[in-house]
Amino acid sequence: MTTDFTATKALFDLPAGVIYLDGNSLGPLPRAVAPRVEAAIRAEWGAMLITAWNKAGWMDLPERLGNRIGRLIGAEPGTVTLGDTLSIKVFQALDAALQLRPERRVILSDSGNFPTDLYMAQGLTGLLGQGYELRVVAPEDVEAAIDETVAVTMLTEVDYRTGRKHDMAALTAKAHAAGALAFWDLAHSAGAVPVDLAGAGADFAAGCTYKYLNSGPGGPAFIYVAPRHAGQVRPVLSGWLGHDAPFAFEPGYRPAPGAARMRVGTPPVLQLAALEAALDVWDGVSMAEIRARSIALTSRFIAAVEANCPDLTLVTPRDPQARGSQVSFAHAQGYAIMQALIARGVIGDFRAPDILRFGVTPLYIGEAEIDRAADILTEVMATRAWDRPEFHARAKVT
Amino acid sequence: MTTDFTATKALFDLPAGVIYLDGNSLGPLPRAVAPRVEAAIRAEWGAMLITAWNKAGWMDLPERLGNRIGRLIGAEPGTVTLGDTLSIKVFQALDAALQLRPERRVILSDSGNFPTDLYMAQGLTGLLGQGYELRVVAPEDVEAAIDETVAVTMLTEVDYRTGRKHDMAALTAKAHAAGALAFWDLAHSAGAVPVDLAGAGADFAAGCTYKYLNSGPGGPAFIYVAPRHAGQVRPVLSGWLGHDAPFAFEPGYRPAPGAARMRVGTPPVLQLAALEAALDVWDGVSMAEIRARSIALTSRFIAAVEANCPDLTLVTPRDPQARGSQVSFAHAQGYAIMQALIARGVIGDFRAPDILRFGVTPLYIGEAEIDRAADILTEVMATRAWDRPEFHARAKVT
Repeated sequence: MTTDFTATKALFDLPAGVIYLDGNSLGPLPRAVAPRVEAAIRAEWGAMLITAWNKAGWMDLPERLGNRIGRLIGAEPGTVTLGDTLSIKVFQALDAALQLRPERRVILSDSGNFPTDLYMAQGLTGLLGQGYELRVVAPEDVEAAIDETVAVTMLTEVDYRTGRKHDMAALTAKAHAAGALAFWDLAHSAGAVPVDLAGAGADFAAGCTYKYLNSGPGGPAFIYVAPRHAGQVRPVLSGWLGHDAPFAFEPGYRPAPGAARMRVGTPPVLQLAALEAALDVWDGVSMAEIRARSIALTSRFIAAVEANCPDLTLVTPRDPQARGSQVSFAHAQGYAIMQALIARGVIGDFRAPDILRFGVTPLYIGEAEIDRAADILTEVMATRAWDRPEFHARAKVT
Repeated sequence: MTTDFTATKALFDLPAGVIYLDGNSLGPLPRAVAPRVEAAIRAEWGAMLITAWNKAGWMDLPERLGNRIGRLIGAEPGTVTLGDTLSIKVFQALDAALQLRPERRVILSDSGNFPTDLYMAQGLTGLLGQGYELRVVAPEDVEAAIDETVAVTMLTEVDYRTGRKHDMAALTAKAHAAGALAFWDLAHSAGAVPVDLAGAGADFAAGCTYKYLNSGPGGPAFIYVAPRHAGQVRPVLSGWLGHDAPFAFEPGYRPAPGAARMRVGTPPVLQLAALEAALDVWDGVSMAEIRARSIALTSRFIAAVEANCPDLTLVTPRDPQARGSQVSFAHAQGYAIMQALIARGVIGDFRAPDILRFGVTPLYIGEAEIDRAADILTEVMATRAWDRPEFHARAKVT
């Protein structure tokens, strides 16, 4: 297939005058979303009422959309389900992995992981006691730290701050060689870079849909369970919709077959409707072509900024194979610089303590946007336009 | 205040020819929802993009709407937050309660509780091991079963099948007298009957918003934490948005003050927008007046059905003070009878093994609907209209 990037850009409703380089935080609005959600509200909920669970197929949405996401991340059919938030899915995956390695006590992660992954692991190990431990090493030390004490590695493939990309296949193989399991957080991977979960032999994975998959604020998370494990795991978050027969209302929990047992409660139908429309954007899109264009665009941005903004320090790997689909620069005044950019219509984001982060999403970003963003950043830096009091006032959400 | 029930009915978009007696499963569509969600999609997500987290106030939605629900359930300001599903909130509340009673091992519940509550308790006790136990007794035996071994009672105030209502104040007092804590599931209470969590001294509560609060399919759950406990609990589902400083991205979890620590991941903004519009219905509504009218309507329905349908057995308490806002009858052919009713525009639901369940929601149900529903049920029973093959074919969701 040959992806038509002019066509994909036309599928988004982007505000005039804005160059949006924050799709790695919240993807922009696909045009198909509002009508699809309105139909879910009026024609399904409003007109069918309770019968929509069957008539409109609400109950199967998590598996149906899970399979569509599965295509983008190399997952076998029936191995991905949707619901809850990524934090919850991390908890489920870690618990499942620890069940499969009952004689081991260590969850191994790295200090570049997104904090909620670390927090959820802390919550789980704290509850388990008995020597369970979250062990955190520097990203570059992960490989050497995988040993026979590790039950499961918990790694986010693409670092949310630096954009550094782990080698999923190599680290999964290393984990398996040590008798450990591999859990991958795909928050900055799904829709951003080609992922081959089955090919890499990943055991568990999870991710969010509101970044590169553009499902909107608070869109549901997904979880992947390798087929060889799905029947072995008894979910700790054993909700009724992960039961084999939810409407039999049995007093005891019996997990559903496969990954569907990772469902917990009632699925968020309106958010799923938004996701369903957002996934239409991916029809006819090749992840290999997305990747090639992402590398071209991130390289172009790095070159322009490094040529014109000597005060900014590149923190994203220069080797394109070693990074995801974002570019990050460090600067002590990063927060104010980002506010000055946003005031000029270039929307990226800031990550404490000093990171300017720019997501590059070929679905709707091309050479023209990259060049213009680099020009505006150059102007902000050259004129110290960021050095104004209003750009230093911190908002609640940064 | 004097509630105007003609005015509240006009706030809903009800299909013509339908008498909807299933608001206890999925509330119908408030007219304000579709425009509010469309605004959240187009004017907030679409136009403001990532900046809507601050500009549109998305980040505080769970607490803002939690306070509005708090008014309906007798919760102090700042004690209710929203997110996730009721199953997850049950898990959080139970874990918190067990932390507060470290020397005890028993979660006490009853066999009429909704299965997901029992399943989540099974998941938690299974994970904890060390003698932790879910003890399930018959609903009428709960009071006698509260003893010094019980850490926390887990009771759904209104039974989802029978409509039987526990005495929250009395059972909470009994739990406290035995040194136990009381967790209340308000799934069939919030918006259905007056609840006074603070007055009853409840320790924790949780509920869903898609039943009597009409937030739509998969609407977020709520959780209540009594102010005396909020600072004492370290959430096991320690997600980043329950952290004291989520955007500081600290490596270690530090809980936010108060009930907000029970937040986990990114809030479902579109479902919250629907809930926000749905809560407008409650402005100017008195729960005492809702209750008085609910009792009048359920009593009227019981009288009509018992007078005309001798084959149906009332399973809801005859004493109005001992029931919630639903009426249930048992019949061995309950499933087929309900399908025949739905085919005639009377929508209730069926709960295995033999329960016909009718939710009575005074916001949009009046005497005329009750009388018409009773007439149609009488006709279905008298003519055995349910005895057709198509009414016996079970749907996935019953």
